[in-house]
Amino acid sequence: MPAESIKPQLLKGFRDFLPAQQILRQRIIGQLRTIFEKHGFAPLDTPALEYAQTLTGKYGEEERLLYRFQDHGGRDVGLRYDLTVPLARVMGLYQNQIVFPFKRYHIAPVWRAENPQRGRYREFYQCDVDIVGAAGMLADAEILSILAEAMDTFGFTGYQILLYNRKLLEAMARDAGAPAQAVLIWRALDKLAKIGPSGVLAEMERYGVPADAARRALDFATAGPAGDNLAMLASLERRLAGDPQALEGVRELREIVEYLGVLTPSADRIRVDPTLARGLDYYTGPVWEINVEEPKIGSLGGGGRYDKLVGMFSGRDLPTTGSSIGLERIIDVMESLGLVQATGGVSQVLVAPITPAVLPAALALLAEIRRAGIPAEIYLTPGDKLGKQLQYADRLGIPLAVIVGPDELARDEVVVKDLRTQAQQTRPRAGLAPALLAQL
Amino acid sequence: MPAESIKPQLLKGFRDFLPAQQILRQRIIGQLRTIFEKHGFAPLDTPALEYAQTLTGKYGEEERLLYRFQDHGGRDVGLRYDLTVPLARVMGLYQNQIVFPFKRYHIAPVWRAENPQRGRYREFYQCDVDIVGAAGMLADAEILSILAEAMDTFGFTGYQILLYNRKLLEAMARDAGAPAQAVLIWRALDKLAKIGPSGVLAEMERYGVPADAARRALDFATAGPAGDNLAMLASLERRLAGDPQALEGVRELREIVEYLGVLTPSADRIRVDPTLARGLDYYTGPVWEINVEEPKIGSLGGGGRYDKLVGMFSGRDLPTTGSSIGLERIIDVMESLGLVQATGGVSQVLVAPITPAVLPAALALLAEIRRAGIPAEIYLTPGDKLGKQLQYADRLGIPLAVIVGPDELARDEVVVKDLRTQAQQTRPRAGLAPALLAQL
Repeated sequence: MPAESIKPQLLKGFRDFLPAQQILRQRIIGQLRTIFEKHGFAPLDTPALEYAQTLTGKYGEEERLLYRFQDHGGRDVGLRYDLTVPLARVMGLYQNQIVFPFKRYHIAPVWRAENPQRGRYREFYQCDVDIVGAAGMLADAEILSILAEAMDTFGFTGYQILLYNRKLLEAMARDAGAPAQAVLIWRALDKLAKIGPSGVLAEMERYGVPADAARRALDFATAGPAGDNLAMLASLERRLAGDPQALEGVRELREIVEYLGVLTPSADRIRVDPTLARGLDYYTGPVWEINVEEPKIGSLGGGGRYDKLVGMFSGRDLPTTGSSIGLERIIDVMESLGLVQATGGVSQVLVAPITPAVLPAALALLAEIRRAGIPAEIYLTPGDKLGKQLQYADRLGIPLAVIVGPDELARDEVVVKDLRTQAQQTRPRAGLAPALLAQL
Repeated sequence: MPAESIKPQLLKGFRDFLPAQQILRQRIIGQLRTIFEKHGFAPLDTPALEYAQTLTGKYGEEERLLYRFQDHGGRDVGLRYDLTVPLARVMGLYQNQIVFPFKRYHIAPVWRAENPQRGRYREFYQCDVDIVGAAGMLADAEILSILAEAMDTFGFTGYQILLYNRKLLEAMARDAGAPAQAVLIWRALDKLAKIGPSGVLAEMERYGVPADAARRALDFATAGPAGDNLAMLASLERRLAGDPQALEGVRELREIVEYLGVLTPSADRIRVDPTLARGLDYYTGPVWEINVEEPKIGSLGGGGRYDKLVGMFSGRDLPTTGSSIGLERIIDVMESLGLVQATGGVSQVLVAPITPAVLPAALALLAEIRRAGIPAEIYLTPGDKLGKQLQYADRLGIPLAVIVGPDELARDEVVVKDLRTQAQQTRPRAGLAPALLAQL
């Protein structure tokens, strides 16, 4: 075959993950899993392929991005577009054997035929964590405490979790005297950080929101005592005193803020923010979003309560709250903040046999080093010069080399070289593994 | 939406993994990763979708099982059918930035439009571990030592790794005087365990192998001193003394057997077996297969050296050896041998607040328990009766419940109930987490 070699090609918008990147991805996914499980969430997995009718009618305009085709049996099928619709399908299929509230996480790739651009891919991972079947705010607080712990674990120091409530967004439009234009008001407000207050007013006017209502809405969203959640909620409560639905929204947020104060050491990262408008055709209660100050990349994840969606295959409402964490963005930001170090390999020790004759002794040492729990490998072409062997270790970022030569062996010794410092020393063959552990 | 609820359906041959199963799958995948990395193998991942031309022409007859379709840009694409062709493509694309020998593992789903039957799915995981760019038998021995460690780690006690060499299979046909019928001889021999020696002879005759050659081939495959690898190799060497290619094959196997004697404590699991015939259009040197005595399910994995395949996109030969481990079969066998216990949840502790008023204290305890590293959750509807709360814990297999009531709290105490034994005792609130750890 090599004679008539085929041109290797990768599809646009798709990625290969070579070891350095994949090690990092697996580490971050592993950290997320640990945090999810520490909070009592169990894993779920579903197929990459679904009946197309399971997926269609769920994503609005975006449905055109579905990968759809006919399978060998002529069935109309599609690649998973998100992890929420599969969750809803699972709830419908197994509701009699599932224990509610159902706390699940799902970390898996999804596929969307997006126009590829920086940071946007056609295959990417979603990390979702949801509680199905719990209507109280304790559930929302648990999800938010997970997000804070994840951000702390990854080492982010400049993050905030913005929190608001769909019910208050509606109240704001009523308060402004333009309830029918709520969606337009939100859409404009959503750009506040980018275009500033006057920009938002101009935007609302362009959308046809009366100038008076626009000013009132902007004032509503920006007037409260930002930075003090309880004071902000008290201020909202006073302003919306006559609006029962709004007061329920305030009460929900106050409950969450109080729970988080006990539940997480990072409660000060959560900020009630009346300018937060997201997922409006979807959420029914609290909504949130994780932001970092630097780099300016948009949100690293977000979520909220969506009580009307997950029951769509179950014949009944299933109150649900949850969040999605953006794996690719987390990694992008960690890289740009210098929070990660890439490495090309996993071994901590290379055993380097100088001649083929020392191979049995070298293999015995390798087995001993591995038994001590140290990831280790042996150089696979024992005839090669030592310099070439050490260069291999160096290129993979392997920190220590155990050099096994016939003269040293005769004295029951080996040479240990630290490739980070170039320092090397002779060590007794017996008890080598603990000595290596100490040096790593 | 619930009003006009949609019927939830799963595609035939595909599976949902609810928590109990997914916890088990993730645990086994995690164990494999740990073993692979301990041996210095780094992870690789590639897209689910490939250009169809990358996949076609590689799988012979089986190509009809490829999921193929046209994407939004009219490109002919297909779902990954195995992990070997993507490895070859990666070698072709990045050969200048990869450090050789390249030791990678890849654990990921593949898709094949098989006719679904017991143990055969249209979406299933492959766990592949390969070394690209190392021609020596040290590489093969490393792969085999990984397989033995995996089987030991999973708790299998009745397994064997059968080992043979493609070069010796060819020599056997030459020795029988029927070199042109080598493939037919192997195909018949492959059924030895099922149909016995006389069945194999009958099968060969049906294939048109002359009776004399058939008897000679069967004798060759079954005559050696089974159970003693070095004696078996010596016997093969005597018989094939005039066949240089065969002698090379014997030498390779002897090298592997010697390395494994030093490298793994389970070297006695490896058995040189001249009846092993597998992957004949593919392998070029040593081949192997993992078998268990009970249940009779076929091989749990296998592999070998295939020096001519991975270079197909690289314009040069890349000597490669590696193995595949069958995740679904491993799990099936572990379940049928009683080596695993299914559990519905991950929490070790449920915090059960008897009334909403104790919620702040209950949340503080929950946070403390989690800080001690114990996966824990709080019952999310604090108004519910205690019996209902404990029933939830019981259904999820959560072993301990921390019952937080107003009277106990007033005395700075809580009640800890062990749901495995029904024993309960009152404990001081201070220092609760270490006490729970001791009880788990």
